[in-house]
Amino acid sequence: MASFNKVSIPSSQARAELHDSLSLTGAEISINNLPAGTGVPFVHAHKQNEEIYAILSGSGRAEIDGETVSLAAGDWLRISPEARRQFFASEDTALSFICIQVKVHSLESYTKDDAIV
Amino acid sequence: MASFNKVSIPSSQARAELHDSLSLTGAEISINNLPAGTGVPFVHAHKQNEEIYAILSGSGRAEIDGETVSLAAGDWLRISPEARRQFFASEDTALSFICIQVKVHSLESYTKDDAIV
Repeated sequence: MASFNKVSIPSSQARAELHDSLSLTGAEISINNLPAGTGVPFVHAHKQNEEIYAILSGSGRAEIDGETVSLAAGDWLRISPEARRQFFASEDTALSFICIQVKVHSLESYTKDDAIV
Repeated sequence: MASFNKVSIPSSQARAELHDSLSLTGAEISINNLPAGTGVPFVHAHKQNEEIYAILSGSGRAEIDGETVSLAAGDWLRISPEARRQFFASEDTALSFICIQVKVHSLESYTKDDAIV
């Protein structure tokens, strides 16, 4: 495997998935742009992956297990696999966000404990 | 564990680490802002984590195993654990980026194969 891979995702792209294009082995990552007034058209949960969402720009809301969570740029969410979730852009503003899927409890060490400096 | 956690990271913050604040179990994520003309002050590699970098704004470069990679908003990189890496902002522009650490080969299934709709 190459020591690194790089892709460039235009900010206007509706959705991009990085697992295959970056040869990821520990995560799947999607970049998503929901136009104003729209939402992901289904509710979903996961079997074994936690999801981490980052709001890049715009505003909107998430419905998570029946609770409404407001979303704005700079917000980060961790959602447990079993939680039922759905994301929406605001009526007048698009919502741009990243979604990172990783297997729960898969990280064994990190930062100083995993680094070689 | 709560079904979800949320934090808000100001765009002006020099660095934020999310593992503890979001109770992550499958990743560590940092948000980083390098001022113009600066760089991470050391070269590093990893024992077992692949790193995924997303450039949020600005421009700069990465040095990866002696190769120079230019960086601009919308760029995504996967770097293998053993690759030696160092990140720099441009001389006249700050560099804002995310770094995601995950254990190599830890993702077993994703998206449709892991989802419950």
